[in-house]
Amino acid sequence: MKQTNTSLLSQNAAQAKQALLQRRARLLGPAYRHFYTDPVHVVRGNGVFLYDKEGREYLDAYNNVVPLGHGNRDVAEAISRQMATLCTHTRYLQDGILDYAEDLVGTFGGEIARDGHIMLTCTGSEANDLALRLARAATGADSVIITQHAYHGNSLSTAALSPSLGKSFLRSDWVRLVPAPDSYRAASPEETVRNFTNHIESQIKDIERSGRKLAALLIDSFFTSDGVFSDPVTLLAEATRTVRGAGGLVVMDEVQTGFARTGNALWGYQRYGIEPDIVTLGKPMGNGYPVAGLATTAKVAREFGENTRYFNTFGGNTVSVAAAQATLRGIREQHLQDNARTVGHVFKAALKALQAKYECIGDVRGEGLYLAVELITGSAQKSPAPALASTIVNGLRERGVLISVTGMHANSLKIRPPLIFSYNHVDRFMSALTETLDAVLRSTRCI
Amino acid sequence: MKQTNTSLLSQNAAQAKQALLQRRARLLGPAYRHFYTDPVHVVRGNGVFLYDKEGREYLDAYNNVVPLGHGNRDVAEAISRQMATLCTHTRYLQDGILDYAEDLVGTFGGEIARDGHIMLTCTGSEANDLALRLARAATGADSVIITQHAYHGNSLSTAALSPSLGKSFLRSDWVRLVPAPDSYRAASPEETVRNFTNHIESQIKDIERSGRKLAALLIDSFFTSDGVFSDPVTLLAEATRTVRGAGGLVVMDEVQTGFARTGNALWGYQRYGIEPDIVTLGKPMGNGYPVAGLATTAKVAREFGENTRYFNTFGGNTVSVAAAQATLRGIREQHLQDNARTVGHVFKAALKALQAKYECIGDVRGEGLYLAVELITGSAQKSPAPALASTIVNGLRERGVLISVTGMHANSLKIRPPLIFSYNHVDRFMSALTETLDAVLRSTRCI
Repeated sequence: MKQTNTSLLSQNAAQAKQALLQRRARLLGPAYRHFYTDPVHVVRGNGVFLYDKEGREYLDAYNNVVPLGHGNRDVAEAISRQMATLCTHTRYLQDGILDYAEDLVGTFGGEIARDGHIMLTCTGSEANDLALRLARAATGADSVIITQHAYHGNSLSTAALSPSLGKSFLRSDWVRLVPAPDSYRAASPEETVRNFTNHIESQIKDIERSGRKLAALLIDSFFTSDGVFSDPVTLLAEATRTVRGAGGLVVMDEVQTGFARTGNALWGYQRYGIEPDIVTLGKPMGNGYPVAGLATTAKVAREFGENTRYFNTFGGNTVSVAAAQATLRGIREQHLQDNARTVGHVFKAALKALQAKYECIGDVRGEGLYLAVELITGSAQKSPAPALASTIVNGLRERGVLISVTGMHANSLKIRPPLIFSYNHVDRFMSALTETLDAVLRSTRCI
Repeated sequence: MKQTNTSLLSQNAAQAKQALLQRRARLLGPAYRHFYTDPVHVVRGNGVFLYDKEGREYLDAYNNVVPLGHGNRDVAEAISRQMATLCTHTRYLQDGILDYAEDLVGTFGGEIARDGHIMLTCTGSEANDLALRLARAATGADSVIITQHAYHGNSLSTAALSPSLGKSFLRSDWVRLVPAPDSYRAASPEETVRNFTNHIESQIKDIERSGRKLAALLIDSFFTSDGVFSDPVTLLAEATRTVRGAGGLVVMDEVQTGFARTGNALWGYQRYGIEPDIVTLGKPMGNGYPVAGLATTAKVAREFGENTRYFNTFGGNTVSVAAAQATLRGIREQHLQDNARTVGHVFKAALKALQAKYECIGDVRGEGLYLAVELITGSAQKSPAPALASTIVNGLRERGVLISVTGMHANSLKIRPPLIFSYNHVDRFMSALTETLDAVLRSTRCI
């Protein structure tokens, strides 16, 4: 009798979800996708947890948009207070945006900290789109080098810089692709660096042969949509010199890795000891509030600014600045960079230990709280195992843990929890992952 | 003694403002502009009023971003409550976005209401950029017709659709310009319609001669950056047929005129009795919160959606939906469409009465709470008077009233206050405008 009730209940829940999916397709149309074979219907969040309609708890190891965690009251109150006081734009003078810009610009060090500027947008797409406009104005060139499976945005121009969009990626003649620095498949760290630099050099030559010029190298600091690569730390020194030698700018996309996530520094690129010309910011900047932007040098901004006014109705409005300032304050006051480093270190070590046990785990990569686990079949061939990755992601979801996949072959687990993730959460994650692997491998052989 | 103190105080205030401007230029760079010769340093807003650092009150007759007024507590509380409950994105299932989409989609009538979709972005630029992507996918064509002094956004692609950006506007070969329907300079309403339709026809022919095809006619429903034109109501019927005959879509940009501002309808384009293929939304949608989007038919969305996933991290997140729903509710509960119509009617009549007195007022245009006053020298030649317009805008600012200018020659006053603007506010505005005109005309002759 009890079983019948439970099964009736779950049948009703399944029917309700089907109806919701149909309503969604009808109202939002065919371009909207959802996560998981059995999508999650979330209604509430708290810290590192999300809760669905039935009250089920999910450990959120995916949403980097809320570094301070879900439902953070400090940011909610900062937004509400500023919204009730004044919500207006940058064509009036305000102190808040200048205080925040001053605070932020210093964190980049180098030329940006010396005389650089902050420009604010609403989304990472807008930030990368604006970076492209700045780079073109500063160099008088148009071509951009990106990696083969990059994602830099959803505007028409940044979608042209996002081959990871798949079949909708429209190849433009001003966009050049290089393979990501696949440290897992290179024979040595030196080879990783050499390959990456050589590919860039060869694309620059080809750009010039075609009568064009290089405007920028645009890369995600950890190549997060290419599968998460951040080694070796010598990766970008030579590439940076090569790009500048050809008159191009180095634009680092920190939408994924910025604001302390990588643990050792506030910005992911600082790992490589380079000084970019433009740094783009986004996702975690306002703990869920739509605020993004970029930092650049006075030299780069000059040409654009003298010929072009930049106005973004909501970008840098008083409320977005209040949200961003409260988020940055929270990251500092709660020592979340330290937390990302220490918890991330233990997390990575636990994943590495799992790697030793399961042959289908080919590699564990990343730093801080941006980690990836690459799944393969055949450790000699290192063949990507996308179906296995998808099964694990869905298996984790069934066990109440949320992540997704990344990489050109969609065969790496992408792990990037809120920065307040603790050792206990790592334990819970690892138990669920081990259980999932064991369940999966009972039916599928790992190798 | 008192005078010396006052002058010392104002000298100090002037020095403080200079220091603030320098700090702003240093931190935000040269692309950021500000309003007014003497920019306003705002610190607080309430209803239709803004307040500067010295506590001075300004009647805000310009900020359409806050239809419910500055500091609206209902929207602030809706945002805060949702932020503390759940702030996450559209890859999980949620009810809120579907309830809002269902509510909104019905307001467009016609094919959009029957089977259309809502897609959410963060800014009007993103909405127009996405409309361009949809239109191209649906038609397989690339060319877009816009008006000569249009503004449709600040992304690389929408800046290419924004000749009003001036010298930074980069002419693209897929963009065609037609003159705005200047009802003030045409001999008759019929001529306004005929000219506008003929220009579109001739551009379509030229597009086809060059081997391209028309993707869309993209227009701001009231041609607000061209100088505000909305007459006659027969303006777009024939143009719409012509565009569709050439295989193009009709995209109406409602970022300026949407959400009840024009008084007679929720959407500006409804004035013309047409049914667009795509309607883009923005500015007032969240009473200051960065939420925007578009409505379109199932037919238009199909091609794009089948080949492209659309994901916008913040676009349509739970908080943006809460802000948008609270704003739409406020517009309805406070009957702001009625208010825009009735107050706008009196406001326009008052401006028309002023036109009878001052020869330099060539025309008064618009509907509801989107009004323009065109300033000229010589009523026969109707020569634009941009210096006079600028003097009036700055004169009004000195008298505590905020507006700006619009039009190809920047010679029309642009008036678009929060929708809660009342008859008393109209009186106050009219007094300040009359006083300003009289002060200006004591030194400059009007004709």
